[in-house]
Amino acid sequence: MTQRVYLDWNATAPLRPEARDAMLDATNIVGNPSSVHAEGRAAKSALEKAREDVASALGAEGADVIFTSGATESAALVMEGRGLACAGVEHAAVLAWCKSELAVGHDGKVTVTDPARSALQLANPETGVIQDLPQGLAVSDLTQAFGKIPFAFNWLGIEAGIVSAHKLGGPRGIGALIVKRGTDIQAKLKGGGQEQGRRAGTENLIGIMGFAAAAKAAQHDLDQGIGEKISGIRDSLMAALESGAKMVTFPGRESRRLPNTLSILTPGWRGETQVMQMDLAGFAVSAGSACSSGKVRPSSVLTAMGIATEWAGDAIRVSIGPTTDDRDVMRFAEAWLAAYERWRQRNESRATAGRV
Amino acid sequence: MTQRVYLDWNATAPLRPEARDAMLDATNIVGNPSSVHAEGRAAKSALEKAREDVASALGAEGADVIFTSGATESAALVMEGRGLACAGVEHAAVLAWCKSELAVGHDGKVTVTDPARSALQLANPETGVIQDLPQGLAVSDLTQAFGKIPFAFNWLGIEAGIVSAHKLGGPRGIGALIVKRGTDIQAKLKGGGQEQGRRAGTENLIGIMGFAAAAKAAQHDLDQGIGEKISGIRDSLMAALESGAKMVTFPGRESRRLPNTLSILTPGWRGETQVMQMDLAGFAVSAGSACSSGKVRPSSVLTAMGIATEWAGDAIRVSIGPTTDDRDVMRFAEAWLAAYERWRQRNESRATAGRV
Repeated sequence: MTQRVYLDWNATAPLRPEARDAMLDATNIVGNPSSVHAEGRAAKSALEKAREDVASALGAEGADVIFTSGATESAALVMEGRGLACAGVEHAAVLAWCKSELAVGHDGKVTVTDPARSALQLANPETGVIQDLPQGLAVSDLTQAFGKIPFAFNWLGIEAGIVSAHKLGGPRGIGALIVKRGTDIQAKLKGGGQEQGRRAGTENLIGIMGFAAAAKAAQHDLDQGIGEKISGIRDSLMAALESGAKMVTFPGRESRRLPNTLSILTPGWRGETQVMQMDLAGFAVSAGSACSSGKVRPSSVLTAMGIATEWAGDAIRVSIGPTTDDRDVMRFAEAWLAAYERWRQRNESRATAGRV
Repeated sequence: MTQRVYLDWNATAPLRPEARDAMLDATNIVGNPSSVHAEGRAAKSALEKAREDVASALGAEGADVIFTSGATESAALVMEGRGLACAGVEHAAVLAWCKSELAVGHDGKVTVTDPARSALQLANPETGVIQDLPQGLAVSDLTQAFGKIPFAFNWLGIEAGIVSAHKLGGPRGIGALIVKRGTDIQAKLKGGGQEQGRRAGTENLIGIMGFAAAAKAAQHDLDQGIGEKISGIRDSLMAALESGAKMVTFPGRESRRLPNTLSILTPGWRGETQVMQMDLAGFAVSAGSACSSGKVRPSSVLTAMGIATEWAGDAIRVSIGPTTDDRDVMRFAEAWLAAYERWRQRNESRATAGRV
């Protein structure tokens, strides 16, 4: 069997070796950070060091980093009951708590009318489209942007940011809510004074230390210019597909996008069919977000961008990472173009048969 | 420096080697369990295997195991908004969501009047007192009992159980809510269909696999009779302290208790002072629960048992585990008795001085 190629980094990224090492270190820390004895203090100290590292990677020095079990919890913690406005391009975990009423252009860009009462993602998980966040924005889902493009929370001028570890090579089950220092957050998990009374529960130190190490490594990669390398690979894939398949389009391509993300739309060819064919050929890609437990539906991101509902289920997403190389995406292009050609010929003979 | 002795297993237990190995294995699983490709299916399969292992260790075959970020989240998920009755001996994460109105005896035993509208822990974290759960009980916090005494969820006759991994040697940041199959649970984290729509968010597979391995190992230890070995060590500690310190009492001793837990009350000698002195002497113990971020207050567990508020801050908890040996607790007894003797003499000379 040939080596499989993982091209679904936006669903979840492979664990970075730095994160793995940090988690192994963390397994040796015995204490509960809430305990006052030496073991507890050692755990507390490791926890606070990790918090500083995450803040630093986020450019959020001086802001409050509240560790949660992931972006889904962070979204609930900061958004529930506030009735914020948002757009249909948001992730389902954000959409669950806001009114989808903001306008989205064909380019995927969202128009915010009242920033203080709105949520807007920094980058879209399916198309990679990067938004210009307005000053004073209430909440931004930074999950897909964190570790993929450089930004600083402190410079974005937003009130709160949602992040997750596993999208940048940390472990799953850990994330954070970033808020300006001292922001009043009503705890949803209660019973302990952890996280300054804003999130009770014994801290997931192994996850947190893995998160911090991955964030640091991602930041280092970005500083070394990995974004250009990754977008170069993505763009060569886009060029290869475009030159071989005339019906294909790339939603969001006219906008500034994450360097690693490519949404590929072939009207009439079901995304789920493509995902299965590519899976059999050895490639992991996805149709839309992974987060709806395997159900494949027309992408709400694409319909929000004005793509017809009948075609919004005909896209796949390729998302790559720091260890993806040119060969990986060229092998994918070859396999995909071959499948495309088979689909096109079937389609044409069907059309011809119809004409007889 | 002599080796430190960790006697605070009820705050958090050292990670079991089996859990560490399983977590290392899990770091190699790349996919998101919600993805449909081979990587996703492999992750899903590992997730469901872990779910079965946890159910099996709990005697909850056929029940629903909903993974959460820990007992605190499980309590919120199953209790919020229901106005259940409970007693003051419950953990703060449970007390946050119920009315503390049930009677507690001096022996720590709780009288439940309306099981279907009540929550009652199976074992107390501070005293180790084990409750007789009434049939039809709405919720039981099984956190401290799971892995320490044998029981089967399916035989308890309760509607829902709360468990956590890190109290039995799994990692922190992962737990579960166990409910009878098909129980309607309103998700608090939304946006994805994970956990049958009852708990959204990408699954913490590393934590879950560590949890399952730890639960399995704990179950195996119990089957081998480790409870007797542990209670033997605990009882020899109790005997040593009792023979050397006449003012000491052991709240809950008249009840059936967890084999590993000893609450030690010395009226007039602050628990936090004892914890600090023992810490300096190389022993990690706690004053009450660890979960209130380092704050030491009179134990609400002990006041609920009728111990005067002025003395309810004068207890420490020693909690041991499978790797604790006789020598560990005897060294502790020696150090504690020496500190006790210094405290007693200071106390007496102060009393004498007062009389002059």
